[in-house]
Amino acid sequence: MTELSFHTPVREDLERVERVLRDHPPEQHEAINLAVDHLINGGGKRLRPTLVLLSARLFDAPIDAAILAAASAEMLHTATLVHDDLIDGSLVRRGVETLNASWTPAATILTGDYVFARAAYLVARTNNIRMTQRFAQTLMVICNGEIRQMLNGTLHGHDLDEYERRIYAKTASLIALSAEAGPILADAPSAHVEALRTYGEHVGTAFQIVDDVLDFVADEETLGKPVGSDLQQGLTTLPVLLYLESEPGPSPVRDVLEGNRSTGLVQEAVQAVLASTAIDDALDVAREHAGRARDRLCDFADSPYRSALLDLADFTVNRRF
Amino acid sequence: MTELSFHTPVREDLERVERVLRDHPPEQHEAINLAVDHLINGGGKRLRPTLVLLSARLFDAPIDAAILAAASAEMLHTATLVHDDLIDGSLVRRGVETLNASWTPAATILTGDYVFARAAYLVARTNNIRMTQRFAQTLMVICNGEIRQMLNGTLHGHDLDEYERRIYAKTASLIALSAEAGPILADAPSAHVEALRTYGEHVGTAFQIVDDVLDFVADEETLGKPVGSDLQQGLTTLPVLLYLESEPGPSPVRDVLEGNRSTGLVQEAVQAVLASTAIDDALDVAREHAGRARDRLCDFADSPYRSALLDLADFTVNRRF
Repeated sequence: MTELSFHTPVREDLERVERVLRDHPPEQHEAINLAVDHLINGGGKRLRPTLVLLSARLFDAPIDAAILAAASAEMLHTATLVHDDLIDGSLVRRGVETLNASWTPAATILTGDYVFARAAYLVARTNNIRMTQRFAQTLMVICNGEIRQMLNGTLHGHDLDEYERRIYAKTASLIALSAEAGPILADAPSAHVEALRTYGEHVGTAFQIVDDVLDFVADEETLGKPVGSDLQQGLTTLPVLLYLESEPGPSPVRDVLEGNRSTGLVQEAVQAVLASTAIDDALDVAREHAGRARDRLCDFADSPYRSALLDLADFTVNRRF
Repeated sequence: MTELSFHTPVREDLERVERVLRDHPPEQHEAINLAVDHLINGGGKRLRPTLVLLSARLFDAPIDAAILAAASAEMLHTATLVHDDLIDGSLVRRGVETLNASWTPAATILTGDYVFARAAYLVARTNNIRMTQRFAQTLMVICNGEIRQMLNGTLHGHDLDEYERRIYAKTASLIALSAEAGPILADAPSAHVEALRTYGEHVGTAFQIVDDVLDFVADEETLGKPVGSDLQQGLTTLPVLLYLESEPGPSPVRDVLEGNRSTGLVQEAVQAVLASTAIDDALDVAREHAGRARDRLCDFADSPYRSALLDLADFTVNRRF
């Protein structure tokens, strides 16, 4: 894992989380051990466990419970990716082979289920029933959102509300849960839970918007997948919605969304989006969310944990990976 | 639902469970509402919720929590069936079309995930962390068992241990959890939890053995699937293992297990098993488990709930459906 500034105050806690993630129950089938290790070693920024830990330290929550909740958030995130990659037929994620690239669909489905169960067990071991309830609710939101996205089809120019709803379900809901874990585990007043939760919703929204921007502006090596993948899959993200708003006439972007997905046309569409103001406009929206996230922390006393949470909000919009 | 004698003392509680199962959260996608209703209306004997309720009433556990735990057990069972049917390519269960018969694999996977999440939320709403932990552990056992069954391949004559391990994971673990729910929710002494848990393990084992026997002796209409389906899928169940023990030489059964799955040969194999002592021997094993289940209840005072639990143990071996 690349160490980023917001990891520093919880570096040792994060190492404990890694050990929990890699700790295989003795009865767990060897194939699951390999799969979980492969998924966990796939890396990533450990954004969700880091949020749980920073939030827990900020509120002085019981640290053993926070370690378990942090591991649970990462495990839940991993589980959703296993089934997503299978459904999308993705063979590579973060430059690492997906499970479904070499496993049968059946083995991939069951392993995803097992990882869900592991995540549910980890959160239940916090001995905090409220945390466990919020965890289950969040999983419902995530699955409901994916079904909605699948069955309600492609968005159109005016569907900004639907886009926000989708990225809330897909990304912001679990990031919000991670951020509110601290006050929940510390049994803090509900206004504090609400503040951290809203911080997390804005961070998650900004994070996903930037993810959607990077699909246009990053290079294939950094992305670990081809540029314009979302558009190739017919996924209408914020840069595309803003492009359609500013360019209402015929365009390669519109052609791609109407189903012509040849690589040449997708690349033309990517260039059209890059040549417009859509990327800057989308980043403005992300920056606004990051600003609102920061605002929610202004009532708390300064500390290395609060500073790291502010850094993390900035990182979501300044990152290039 | 056909009312059986063991349902009677908790009939009103079961009606409350049905309402919880059919209560759709407002944000739940319409397609999920339809899917859940379809799955729940598929019927079945509601063995798991009935066990939760009888056990809860026997130990005078808080009834609102018991209703939620009962609904959770049925929802979890339903979730496992959604993914199982997809993996096995089953188009019909209990005479009702499976979800994957008309939905895409992607929609079926996500709906199964959603139903898992619903089940996890229901159990978390009991506000009982121990119950919630046991629920997650049981889901791990179930998924681990399915992966083991898939990857470790066909059993052979000497694999009685592996068979027991498999049916524990597949069936007995969740039935045991249902049975121990009462003392857990009532915060009863651990010896009582252990007694009900062991009762449930034996009931679950007997139930699955009889399920495996019915695959040979029932008719297609009652089964809701063709006779000999397990053998057709290469699944080695107790009647087959006992047949192989008593008939070590060449046989149509052995041919089927070695991969020749023509319908004619499968029917020959079914007839061979029926002509042997294997069915009676398997039922003897099931009866022994039912007897051991009953024994675990002898220390508790007589009550309609205890009687129903004894009836339920008998039903698992006497049933013809």
